[in-house]
Amino acid sequence: MSKSTLRRDLIVRRWVVVAEERSKRPSDFLKKNDKELKICPFCPGNEQETPPEITAYRRKDSGLWYIRVVPNKFGAFSISENPLERKKIGIFREMEARGAHEVIISTPQHEKRIYDFSPDEMYELLWVCKERTLDLKNDPLIESVFIFGNEGEDAGASLEHEHWQLVGLPVIPKLIWDEIEACRECWDRDDNCAFCLLTQQEYGEKVRIVAENEHFFSLSKYDGRVPFETWILPLAHRPLFEDGGEKILRPLAEILCETIQRIGAVLNRPDFNIFFHSAPLRDRTHDRYYHFHLEILPILTRVAGFEWGTGFYINPTRSEDAAAFLRDIKIETK
Amino acid sequence: MSKSTLRRDLIVRRWVVVAEERSKRPSDFLKKNDKELKICPFCPGNEQETPPEITAYRRKDSGLWYIRVVPNKFGAFSISENPLERKKIGIFREMEARGAHEVIISTPQHEKRIYDFSPDEMYELLWVCKERTLDLKNDPLIESVFIFGNEGEDAGASLEHEHWQLVGLPVIPKLIWDEIEACRECWDRDDNCAFCLLTQQEYGEKVRIVAENEHFFSLSKYDGRVPFETWILPLAHRPLFEDGGEKILRPLAEILCETIQRIGAVLNRPDFNIFFHSAPLRDRTHDRYYHFHLEILPILTRVAGFEWGTGFYINPTRSEDAAAFLRDIKIETK
Repeated sequence: MSKSTLRRDLIVRRWVVVAEERSKRPSDFLKKNDKELKICPFCPGNEQETPPEITAYRRKDSGLWYIRVVPNKFGAFSISENPLERKKIGIFREMEARGAHEVIISTPQHEKRIYDFSPDEMYELLWVCKERTLDLKNDPLIESVFIFGNEGEDAGASLEHEHWQLVGLPVIPKLIWDEIEACRECWDRDDNCAFCLLTQQEYGEKVRIVAENEHFFSLSKYDGRVPFETWILPLAHRPLFEDGGEKILRPLAEILCETIQRIGAVLNRPDFNIFFHSAPLRDRTHDRYYHFHLEILPILTRVAGFEWGTGFYINPTRSEDAAAFLRDIKIETK
Repeated sequence: MSKSTLRRDLIVRRWVVVAEERSKRPSDFLKKNDKELKICPFCPGNEQETPPEITAYRRKDSGLWYIRVVPNKFGAFSISENPLERKKIGIFREMEARGAHEVIISTPQHEKRIYDFSPDEMYELLWVCKERTLDLKNDPLIESVFIFGNEGEDAGASLEHEHWQLVGLPVIPKLIWDEIEACRECWDRDDNCAFCLLTQQEYGEKVRIVAENEHFFSLSKYDGRVPFETWILPLAHRPLFEDGGEKILRPLAEILCETIQRIGAVLNRPDFNIFFHSAPLRDRTHDRYYHFHLEILPILTRVAGFEWGTGFYINPTRSEDAAAFLRDIKIETK
């Protein structure tokens, strides 16, 4: 039996992971976050504090690791050899929260923030994300891999040492599926990929583009949910993140560094969430109308009752204004 | 021209209100919330600090108001006599953020929290919500009315004086529409209302029910997004909130008070979001498979990258455990 369960009912049809490994009683929510100085499990020398390492990337000269991948100690999903258990209980659906939940410790340096990453360091991180995705694809139960970073405490990070997370899921995330369905409708109607149309239109209007290079551009999303929501998209039609080689991941690392630095310069290094959306791991029928992309959501406002209840968002900053701020700020050249 | 705009693109199809009345530059996000003691615009004596009052409910003896409804000074939606402007800009859709955005000041007492409301006071508040909904229904441009409360600063309240908000929207909220579509599928498949099935099943299992009276029950939702997410549902098939008379709104007020007090007792009066989901204002075809209900989401955890990117949630508390805590706690009898 897995330690967590995926639950869903007929009315909302949104999967919720009931994470028993993280199980919390009321008193656990009342404690203040104890910020006492304890040893950081992600720092070199403390490797025994994490579950056994999945993989590590080491400097050839010194043998020291520069990126380390470990299972999430309080992972919401877990690997098992047994067949996936599914249950129907009346109108409820339950499934073991089978899958992988990994932590990518992206630097050995405790003080280093993602704002300080060089394009080379970012490239190494992206490369590890790609390799872990391809490795998880070998598990036939994993239908999608979702990569994300919670940058800072307000973004949900429980440890301050820089890290990203990678989850292998037995289902396709609802929001990626929503995007795919909308894109398929667009394809049926217009014989064109919605992301290609978006790229054309943004390059026609030129008011929301933040940065660009030969393969990618970053964009203040026209209908961003939060102020300064910024997406990074490939210029050409490219459904999958994980099939990119060095020629793709280098420019992706460069534009990601530049975009993060612009956000940091304009907004004084805000906490933010970052995540990847990529076409489904296995089903290639959606490739003709989907682009992989990165979404960056700075934490500047709060999600409140309106957003929780409607699924709509109130954004106090026009994306054209956000783009102008991000474009115009001076940042140090690499 | 309205001061805000609804924006949507073809890819995600989620409306975002770009609220120019609340327009924010980067420096606005850097300021700390200044909690200096200024006069509270919602307190008696300061009525001139709000926009002109829409309506007020006054004590017969003293003439003093006990509930006051005013337009939201920084409203995301605004009323206009002009025809609704809609625009297509390539793959983008734009619409004036036409509608109403009202504040219901639910008590004249500055220090009173919703945890302290008596069933009588709650009943008055629900009655005002019903009357405002029926009044807004007279505006043919308003397709739905959404009522919500941000209880406390962490829930998004910008003023501490107790208040709820009511928004009249020119569209039906995405999440209500998602529920309706799932319920229609259930109806087509099972010839039954999904909410009626849910009620039957919960009364069969009896492990997630928190409180009940002759017309309503409150429930730790099987697939709650957040710990201690609690819904209040009518026992009988009842699609609309606003057609309830005193016989319905009295027991609703009672169970709402009791449920809020139980949450307050178990979790030490946490901040929370509360909102109503009710069938569409005008279209009666969905009534046979929809129930109005209230959702209460205590703020105990953070929405992070996983939730933002997947639309799934990780909940560290089983709803059966939450229900047991809420059911078993002693609260003062009314």
